[in-house]
Amino acid sequence: MTSSEVDLPVVAFEPGRWGDPGAPMHLSESVLGALTMLGIDGGPGPGAELFLMPSRVSGRALSALQKTGAAVAADDATRLAHLRGYSTPDLLKYRAGDTSDAPDVVVTPSTAEQVGEVLAVCAAKDLTLSPFAGGTSVTGGLAPERARPVVALDLRALTGLIALDAVSQVATLAAGTRLPEAERLLAEQGYELGHFPQSYEGATVGGCAVTRSAGQSSIGYGRFDEMVVGLTVATPQGVAEIGTAPKSAAGPDLRQLFLGSEGAFGVVTAVRVRVHPVPTVRRFYGWHFADFASGAYAMRVLAQGSVRPTVLRLSDEVETALNLADPSAAGEAAAGGVMMIVGFEGDERDVDCRDGYVSARLAELGGRFLGEGPGEAWRVGRFRGPYLRDPLLDAGALVETLETVTFWSNVERLKADVTAAITGALGDQGTPAVVMCHISHVYPTGASLYFTVIAKALEDPLAQWLRAKEAANTAIRAAGASITHHHAVGTDHRSTYLEEIGEVQLAALRAVKAALDPRGVLNPGILLP
Amino acid sequence: MTSSEVDLPVVAFEPGRWGDPGAPMHLSESVLGALTMLGIDGGPGPGAELFLMPSRVSGRALSALQKTGAAVAADDATRLAHLRGYSTPDLLKYRAGDTSDAPDVVVTPSTAEQVGEVLAVCAAKDLTLSPFAGGTSVTGGLAPERARPVVALDLRALTGLIALDAVSQVATLAAGTRLPEAERLLAEQGYELGHFPQSYEGATVGGCAVTRSAGQSSIGYGRFDEMVVGLTVATPQGVAEIGTAPKSAAGPDLRQLFLGSEGAFGVVTAVRVRVHPVPTVRRFYGWHFADFASGAYAMRVLAQGSVRPTVLRLSDEVETALNLADPSAAGEAAAGGVMMIVGFEGDERDVDCRDGYVSARLAELGGRFLGEGPGEAWRVGRFRGPYLRDPLLDAGALVETLETVTFWSNVERLKADVTAAITGALGDQGTPAVVMCHISHVYPTGASLYFTVIAKALEDPLAQWLRAKEAANTAIRAAGASITHHHAVGTDHRSTYLEEIGEVQLAALRAVKAALDPRGVLNPGILLP
Repeated sequence: MTSSEVDLPVVAFEPGRWGDPGAPMHLSESVLGALTMLGIDGGPGPGAELFLMPSRVSGRALSALQKTGAAVAADDATRLAHLRGYSTPDLLKYRAGDTSDAPDVVVTPSTAEQVGEVLAVCAAKDLTLSPFAGGTSVTGGLAPERARPVVALDLRALTGLIALDAVSQVATLAAGTRLPEAERLLAEQGYELGHFPQSYEGATVGGCAVTRSAGQSSIGYGRFDEMVVGLTVATPQGVAEIGTAPKSAAGPDLRQLFLGSEGAFGVVTAVRVRVHPVPTVRRFYGWHFADFASGAYAMRVLAQGSVRPTVLRLSDEVETALNLADPSAAGEAAAGGVMMIVGFEGDERDVDCRDGYVSARLAELGGRFLGEGPGEAWRVGRFRGPYLRDPLLDAGALVETLETVTFWSNVERLKADVTAAITGALGDQGTPAVVMCHISHVYPTGASLYFTVIAKALEDPLAQWLRAKEAANTAIRAAGASITHHHAVGTDHRSTYLEEIGEVQLAALRAVKAALDPRGVLNPGILLP
Repeated sequence: MTSSEVDLPVVAFEPGRWGDPGAPMHLSESVLGALTMLGIDGGPGPGAELFLMPSRVSGRALSALQKTGAAVAADDATRLAHLRGYSTPDLLKYRAGDTSDAPDVVVTPSTAEQVGEVLAVCAAKDLTLSPFAGGTSVTGGLAPERARPVVALDLRALTGLIALDAVSQVATLAAGTRLPEAERLLAEQGYELGHFPQSYEGATVGGCAVTRSAGQSSIGYGRFDEMVVGLTVATPQGVAEIGTAPKSAAGPDLRQLFLGSEGAFGVVTAVRVRVHPVPTVRRFYGWHFADFASGAYAMRVLAQGSVRPTVLRLSDEVETALNLADPSAAGEAAAGGVMMIVGFEGDERDVDCRDGYVSARLAELGGRFLGEGPGEAWRVGRFRGPYLRDPLLDAGALVETLETVTFWSNVERLKADVTAAITGALGDQGTPAVVMCHISHVYPTGASLYFTVIAKALEDPLAQWLRAKEAANTAIRAAGASITHHHAVGTDHRSTYLEEIGEVQLAALRAVKAALDPRGVLNPGILLP
């Protein structure tokens, strides 16, 4: 095993703070210096105390839920552990003592059949149900409307490798299986999922499916929605087994209707997903390019060709210079330019073949080879970026990320427009912002853009950020791009999403919702209004 | 230009006979010899005369259709030219003088706006509408229910390259553009679609979209449903522009709801699709393997790896030996074993890189290199196979194809079961059959199987074939495979399709249908009951 990912433990995130509580991250001197330049000179003080409103689920309904055999808990600690996700607004609300989105009760089924029974109880008792798996949503995907009492359906007891078809390289995983656990179970059989979103430590396979997650190896192994070959979905109308073959011409591909449905149409209980043998070789390189445009052009050439690496990402000038996650490695970039990470995984001959071709192309396209040092540094630290957010908030910074995707011809415009929108909206509030960007997912026809924003936090950082986010959303729509490449819609993106899809597509989605969930049990307000 | 495909003319198929009427195919002596071995010794005589029932569209409705600006024709010749497609049952019905599925009127819009207006007239006048583009359906996709009068909407006047985004390598093509015309227009700009189904000469981009076509270069350029990045769809509820970005996490991927929808939800009027620069190098090789199993294993190794050819297909022992399309090239196979075709397209360096890797792997896996001769022979004759069917029917043979797809672990069983089902059903009728098979589309997780069947035709060859088809369908369902890999559902596969998707998925599709087409104007009975 060469994979450090498999060695990561399955950890329980704490409410209100990202990641493994046993491995917190501290701000380096250079980061603290950068904060000083932004006028950030003191934290907001301790968060407010947390009080919960009483659960609105009646004793009779609790009893009916218990009869399904699922575990039922309505204590404060359990409800708080299912309060929203990990967007900066979520963290800020937590710090402000806002517990208004806490579920009324948490139900933890241990079988897929119990999921169906819980759905039936919810319909009968006029409860709503919000699936909760990794809990790592950053788009309000865990904060449904609360007109009726909310059951959080914790799927993490539905865990494990249900089946492995080694010939077809297809694994069936229970939906609540965390990604590190999936990798551990698969590695025992010699296989790997290879899906590494930055939320890897917390995310589940079911969550990755319903949010269309993209992992850092997307150019090699595909997005999660490309890896999925089948889904088992519990709906209020019964169980659907979706996906008969790798690809088919038998009507619409309904996998793609449930992928990205964010629990609005049903609860995914199992995922059949493509896997591959554990790579015997992993090579990660850094490459230097003169500027973002020339680096992005090189990425486009590779993405539009047939021979590709397994990982490909490009930081812009600001992100390269700041390299927040590992400032000690930023020396190379201090001289200007941008950093590209190029990774290869496979067996030796396959990696040699692709590495030879790709490296020659990158050199011709103006790249300067920096060797494995920066590549390995990135690989080892690849999940650490989000750990910085809590200490940055502690230090008085406002920090958040957002992402989008468009066609190649629109990438430069989109990057400029979103950056201008954010810096404008924050500048207007007297808080000049640093906005950095990277491309981490590329396709033959386009690429994602992922922005990180840092500014001094105002008295009401939530309102401050929402102005910037609104400006960014407007810029994304104006540029004709999609509101999200891999973070999903949730509640935060819903209004922009509805503009993006338009009336006819909305009518189709509403019709599916009404047919499969006529009582509106499932995740009201998530994805659809 | 090295592409012979671009030089193919856009031809009008004749009713009741496949392909370019100017390039008919004649049976070779060796094929005639094989027919004799099957007891096939005389044709069925000339077909019946064709009489049409009068059009059921009222003068008032005709007048309303004409007011849209679209061309309207209800003469016999035009209606006959839109009678069904080109399955063997379609051809047999044509020969039997069965014109019962002829549309009542043919409407040819010249703008996308007119499509919407025609839809509105149909709803107002209680007409149904069946989109007709290439007319090459082989699954009854052009034979909707006829309880109400049927308008065939001929889309072939919606033709042309609407836009080319060369940076993003995305072309916007009018839905009625025939594939050879699309290639001609793109080649003028230096680009290529590279989508080569066997129906290439007749098929349109819109038809390829709504039926999930797969071209012979699917391992290189993807299936058509993977190449599409956007659709413009005219529905009775208005126009939908679907697809904002290459990939997105903004909800379900609704492109995949309309792809494969076979005109049941709307009329696709334009398709935005991935293209690539015209290859400067094309290399096609033949490889010999000892048997189908070892050839299929080699394909699986390539499909599950990262370095792949552009074309990959494998004929089984029977197909290799018979090599109907070019019996003169079958010499190699006469010694036993199976033929694999491996093609590479791209620039020289890219092709060299992939060719070197792939050829080395194939040699290790037991392949024997046969050089470019068999590869080029296949490439040049790649669209000629279907031309054989009419002369075979003329000669007294029953000949038809069918196809399916499953996961790799199920490929051998599926092939054996379908073969046994067909030979059993035909043998029971006293007509022993030759069943041959090839794999022409592979994925990391599975592969398609394409069967060709030849037997002596009985007095009622339609009834004879339907028994074999029913047996094949049952075997496909029993093996858990999909009823179609790239021929779509139409009417012929509908009942098996409904078993395949089950009640919950059907409920979702019915809901979409009811929401977008509440009057049931669009293609009644196609895809959905």
